[in-house]
Amino acid sequence: MTRPTSPTAYRTLDPAGIRAFLAAQPALAARLGGRPDEWRVREVSDGNLNNVFLIHGPAGGVCFKQSLPHVRVDPDWKMPLDRTAFEAAYLRAVRPHVGALTTELLHFDPDLFALVIECLDAHVVLRQGLMQGGDWPEAAAAIGRFVARATFRTSPLALKFEDASTLLAPFARNHTLTRITVDLVLTDPYHAHPRNHWLSPELDTTVAAFRADPNVRRRVGQMQARFLTCQQALLHGDLHTGSVMVAAHDTRVIDGEFALPGPIGFDCGLFVGNLLMHLFATPTPQGRTRALRDIGQFWTHFRQDFTTQWTDAVARDQAGDAYAAPLFRDDPASLHQVQARFLDEVETDTIAFAALEIIRRITGYAHIADFDVITDRAARAARQQAALHLARDLLAEPARIPTIAALLALAADRAG
Amino acid sequence: MTRPTSPTAYRTLDPAGIRAFLAAQPALAARLGGRPDEWRVREVSDGNLNNVFLIHGPAGGVCFKQSLPHVRVDPDWKMPLDRTAFEAAYLRAVRPHVGALTTELLHFDPDLFALVIECLDAHVVLRQGLMQGGDWPEAAAAIGRFVARATFRTSPLALKFEDASTLLAPFARNHTLTRITVDLVLTDPYHAHPRNHWLSPELDTTVAAFRADPNVRRRVGQMQARFLTCQQALLHGDLHTGSVMVAAHDTRVIDGEFALPGPIGFDCGLFVGNLLMHLFATPTPQGRTRALRDIGQFWTHFRQDFTTQWTDAVARDQAGDAYAAPLFRDDPASLHQVQARFLDEVETDTIAFAALEIIRRITGYAHIADFDVITDRAARAARQQAALHLARDLLAEPARIPTIAALLALAADRAG
Ligand SMILES: Nc1ncnc2c1ncn2[C@@H]1O[C@H](COP(=O)(O)OP(=O)(O)O)[C@@H](O)[C@H]1O
Ligand SMILES: Nc1ncnc2c1ncn2[C@@H]1O[C@H](COP(=O)(O)OP(=O)(O)O)[C@@H](O)[C@H]1O
Repeated sequence: MTRPTSPTAYRTLDPAGIRAFLAAQPALAARLGGRPDEWRVREVSDGNLNNVFLIHGPAGGVCFKQSLPHVRVDPDWKMPLDRTAFEAAYLRAVRPHVGALTTELLHFDPDLFALVIECLDAHVVLRQGLMQGGDWPEAAAAIGRFVARATFRTSPLALKFEDASTLLAPFARNHTLTRITVDLVLTDPYHAHPRNHWLSPELDTTVAAFRADPNVRRRVGQMQARFLTCQQALLHGDLHTGSVMVAAHDTRVIDGEFALPGPIGFDCGLFVGNLLMHLFATPTPQGRTRALRDIGQFWTHFRQDFTTQWTDAVARDQAGDAYAAPLFRDDPASLHQVQARFLDEVETDTIAFAALEIIRRITGYAHIADFDVITDRAARAARQQAALHLARDLLAEPARIPTIAALLALAADRAG
Repeated sequence: MTRPTSPTAYRTLDPAGIRAFLAAQPALAARLGGRPDEWRVREVSDGNLNNVFLIHGPAGGVCFKQSLPHVRVDPDWKMPLDRTAFEAAYLRAVRPHVGALTTELLHFDPDLFALVIECLDAHVVLRQGLMQGGDWPEAAAAIGRFVARATFRTSPLALKFEDASTLLAPFARNHTLTRITVDLVLTDPYHAHPRNHWLSPELDTTVAAFRADPNVRRRVGQMQARFLTCQQALLHGDLHTGSVMVAAHDTRVIDGEFALPGPIGFDCGLFVGNLLMHLFATPTPQGRTRALRDIGQFWTHFRQDFTTQWTDAVARDQAGDAYAAPLFRDDPASLHQVQARFLDEVETDTIAFAALEIIRRITGYAHIADFDVITDRAARAARQQAALHLARDLLAEPARIPTIAALLALAADRAG
């Protein structure tokens, strides 16, 4: 993952280069079928960081993703190339546990930092789908199962600590993208920083108010420490609704380049935070009902699946070194209690990280598109303000909103 | 640290080999002075794991420590050699922050896994000193400062997360000795395991009782998870009273081979746990008064020093990414509150890990010598039983004994 590359080996591939690159890999060429000149190469880059192309041949398609030596949307912001290597490593680590809840890794080239994964042709990005008023009633539950499996199976709840430590160690070196999270998500929105921006002057007072609130500040500081010191499991690290692709009965997590060891509630919180923003942004009552349903489904299925896997691991004597099986094998009541307490803590983290995600997506550097469906500026400001107030309350008064159930009640009330 | 060694390069040095080894290092030979045949080589190994020799020449002395390919006291228990490499790395990491509270690293040979540190001639091991009724009124405060500095300065409270991560990563590979802690300290004493032993039949009922207590079991499971997932700072990892050497006005921490990233309360808890056992083992009222004083001093100075460093770092804008300075620089009241809350959590951990240390040192594999001063078997059993009861209560009813102050009151009462 940190293997040094000869400085000349890397080049950014254009469509012709991608065609030649894929043609040179017999397994990939076979998957596409036909001759390279029959392949259709289409750019779909829409993220901030990388080039993404879909390539289709007579037999099938693949998705080609390549790191650039800079942020895609800002060529002046230089960035090391290794992020696709982390994405490849993440897929290798979690795919055995989550199966078709993510994509298959077909190829990784460590010189070109080029990743080839299966192409999702029937799918749309969840965020875009939701913005267009679509409904995927199975998706949130699937993401709950994804997080439950990807985290439980990479934690010392499931692994001997030596195996957990060996698995997590390379991801602790994902410094470039972790720095983005530390700065853009956890720090910058809470003080004056040139990268911050928001709907001004409408939100100025709201932003000034949460920044001035010492309860918010203390909780943000705590969540910074939690993010950096609580290494419960391997995280996706960027699990917003733009990292999920959905079809009618198929839900996939993509874009694991931010993967890092961390607190499980961070993955949960990003997903919940983005659904909450959708709740405030969506113009229809059905949209709001679905957003609330999705948050509930996500959390219920995450919690259920995590618990089931844990109980099974202990019963089959395949638990890890944390909550070691010899102590809990014959005491299901105690196992049940420690599970509940562990997941209550994840719930607390989830709520706080969801709040941080809301604040940074409305007042920080990288905003989300969801609010753009509201074309009236004053109405958009009002919805963003309501979302920010909710986030502020989640951070300032955690004891008042201790559960996802309480959060749902409050959010339903506030979103109208 | 994990650099592979040619299998023939390592050999266990005898006194003649040590003499030749030191003579080949000009700086070490100069420190000893005179000719190698004038040097006195004396074995002082008393730990479970390694060979330790003190070498004196006309000008001065050095301490030579070498890993064996097995546990020193059990040649059938094979063990990799890298533990002295971790001890050397730990000294390199903390010495700049703790100065003369540990020893200087004079040399490390990665083929022989041989470590040379300054020789502490005026010093005795604190455990032995206490057992002989000695008093070092400054020692516990010094250890408090040692832990405060060694942990604060290696945590993301003080460091950019990239630097903390790079510093801690090699220590996360200290699998061999961490496995010992996970098994012998955190797991084995809580179920039937052939390595466990205790004063039987006197303590049989007590051991059966705490093993059968579901409150104990749940708390032990939580502390296992905390030990394995809460990577707050670089820990010493084995900070009992046998890892401290004392002279009249000089206190040194030795033997950092268990170093690992972990929760700060683990280092605190091992030290407090060993002082608590001394409290129960010491036959004199003065001994007990001093043990209580030492626990109080340790904790007060740890907490004070940790807080002072943190406040200074924020004021000088040299704080790390957790509780980032831009949030707290201009809000001393909030800084004070997050510091208090952070250290309250360390206090809770300290009490639980102290309890685990007591239980494993009386009922697990590796016992301590302190209770051997009580020659009457029934009296010894009674004192061990009282210590075990206290430990059980600390684990089973943490809410009743939430602070070191409460612990001291209870311990004073129980120890008589
Ligand atoms: N496997 C895939 N199949 C089809 N489209 C994909 C696939 N992976 C990504 N995409 C499309 O490419 C876009 C950018 O991919 P993503 O991995 O999010 O890149 P970035 O790291 O730059 O954010 C996605 O939003 C999606 O539209
Ligand atoms: N720097 C030193 N100066 C003098 N004696 C020392 C020094 N370091 C260790 N010793 C003596 O050697 C003993 C064993 O050292 P230690 O580092 O604890 O070894 P182990 O890793 O085997 O437990 C100590 O208990 C102490 O008596």
